Amino acid sequence: MIIKANGYDIIIEKGCLDRAGDYLPADRKMLVVTDSGVPAEYAQKVLSFCAEDSIIKTVPQGEESKNFDNLKDLLRKMLEAGFPRRDCVIAVGGGVVGDLSGFAASIYMRGIDFYNIPTTLLSQVDSSVGGKTAIDFEGVKNIVGAFYPPKAVLIDENVLSTLPLRQLNNGLAEALKMSMTSDSELFEIFENGNPYESIEAIIEKSLLVKTDVVNKDEKEQGLRRVLNFGHTIGHGIEAEQAGALYHGECVAIGMIPMCSSETAGRLKTILAKLGLPSSCEGDVEKIYEAMLHDKKSGKESITAVFVDEPGFFRFEEVSPDSLKEKIRTVVRGKKQ
Amino acid sequence: MIIKANGYDIIIEKGCLDRAGDYLPADRKMLVVTDSGVPAEYAQKVLSFCAEDSIIKTVPQGEESKNFDNLKDLLRKMLEAGFPRRDCVIAVGGGVVGDLSGFAASIYMRGIDFYNIPTTLLSQVDSSVGGKTAIDFEGVKNIVGAFYPPKAVLIDENVLSTLPLRQLNNGLAEALKMSMTSDSELFEIFENGNPYESIEAIIEKSLLVKTDVVNKDEKEQGLRRVLNFGHTIGHGIEAEQAGALYHGECVAIGMIPMCSSETAGRLKTILAKLGLPSSCEGDVEKIYEAMLHDKKSGKESITAVFVDEPGFFRFEEVSPDSLKEKIRTVVRGKKQ
Repeated sequence: MIIKANGYDIIIEKGCLDRAGDYLPADRKMLVVTDSGVPAEYAQKVLSFCAEDSIIKTVPQGEESKNFDNLKDLLRKMLEAGFPRRDCVIAVGGGVVGDLSGFAASIYMRGIDFYNIPTTLLSQVDSSVGGKTAIDFEGVKNIVGAFYPPKAVLIDENVLSTLPLRQLNNGLAEALKMSMTSDSELFEIFENGNPYESIEAIIEKSLLVKTDVVNKDEKEQGLRRVLNFGHTIGHGIEAEQAGALYHGECVAIGMIPMCSSETAGRLKTILAKLGLPSSCEGDVEKIYEAMLHDKKSGKESITAVFVDEPGFFRFEEVSPDSLKEKIRTVVRGKKQ
Repeated sequence: MIIKANGYDIIIEKGCLDRAGDYLPADRKMLVVTDSGVPAEYAQKVLSFCAEDSIIKTVPQGEESKNFDNLKDLLRKMLEAGFPRRDCVIAVGGGVVGDLSGFAASIYMRGIDFYNIPTTLLSQVDSSVGGKTAIDFEGVKNIVGAFYPPKAVLIDENVLSTLPLRQLNNGLAEALKMSMTSDSELFEIFENGNPYESIEAIIEKSLLVKTDVVNKDEKEQGLRRVLNFGHTIGHGIEAEQAGALYHGECVAIGMIPMCSSETAGRLKTILAKLGLPSSCEGDVEKIYEAMLHDKKSGKESITAVFVDEPGFFRFEEVSPDSLKEKIRTVVRGKKQ
């Protein structure tokens, strides 16, 4: 399947990594960026399709790699290799690699072409699409970056075979989120089907939801906020947990209090099936503070996304206090 | 006069700095960026129109300020002051301040609003318009940046009264360049009028040339190269001179060999009138190397801009060698 995003193609096709040459410009140098957690053979395979003098740069695995030092390293590599504006950057990895290298591509010579081959389910169903790139700075996530769409995204289900189950479930949580707000058929797969046997359909349907939203609101002026379902509280939990819980796991917990009680019940059953948590232990005050910092916008109220019935959402302005109450329903205070 | 650029207004109006509040959003915090060479009262005046908790950041004067350290300082200032996405950056200074602060605005939270109040003639007739922002990196000028148009540009002729004559002539050189390629009426002012008494007309006509080109080719795919008239050799000279000659002075010299001999003669007369050089002493080999580095594009030939008759240009693909011959006509070897 090929999905048309704003000005670029998303190719969803089993085995497309082995045929990446069909989708990449053969006559231009590439900086292939990957991380230490991605099987090295993926980047090597991509390199084999690139023009002579293309290079691979491997950054350490993990969110910490999204920093100015690595950004400058990538820019320096391109300078040293004499990349003119027609050369390209290609990401082979998860969200961290995509965010970092996409941002580098966006600012080198004021922007050179960027390709993305996401290798985690989380980045396949979410971050590789939509054109958001960024690094972290002074402890604040994604605070420095650009809206910079890729030239193409290649999504190959085969690369998921090397992914640990917990990482796979991490991605399914984001796909489940898309279904909750916008696709009752996708929700049906999660509720009554076997998600692990429907990965391709899940990727396709999730990306149709995401590209539809992004095509309508690329720069996050309004509608795009629907993608934040479960993320307001989820980001607070993620910051407080400091790596103990994955992003998708935090979003899973963050969705529960934003649903009607009947829908929350159905959601919990699915989360259990996917090995995802519905609650956690944590410090409610710290989660609340982190959530407010994340949402800092000079406003008293927060635009939150609610789901009363799977597949349909509504925006509602709520007070920070009411969200604090909601946090309490899914976070158990730590025993001292 | 108000010129409509791609999505923003350029306000050319004597005294508009004193009425800046009419053009700036009153209810949003501003980071006002200026440099040590700009009279401090300009930034103070702008600050008086900004919302509470707005701040001024002053960087050292000179091209060296366009670096990652200053970029990170600006981003940190905004973070510390808790700038949400709705707040803004405003440049009060020359091209260095505009390039640096515009780039910071383009990447903070993936882009916040940017306003520009250029205080040199060079930036008023050229760099403040067109949406190019950048910093230097690893000794390469403008290698890291973004195409990021401002929300508005305020051009006040009054601020030029504090400018040294050589700086004023530096700006006139760029305006003269616009006239050479695209506006024979503007050229007429330079050739037969008194440019110093026609500053407002010169600014207006120059910006009409520039915005017309940029509106047609914002991202420098082709036509925008006309703005590089005199810059191919000029940039080479500028790099070799390492600050001894101003940008406009190098462009002045760089224009001469790209003209028909009759036009070159008329141009030299004007340059003499404006206290601008038509030739210089220097190392031809070094200038040639710097020029090639600047133009590195993986191609054998270079697209150069030629002017046979003032007001009209043509593109021509030339060999690097033929440009080296042209350098020799305006650069005298240094005596050992």
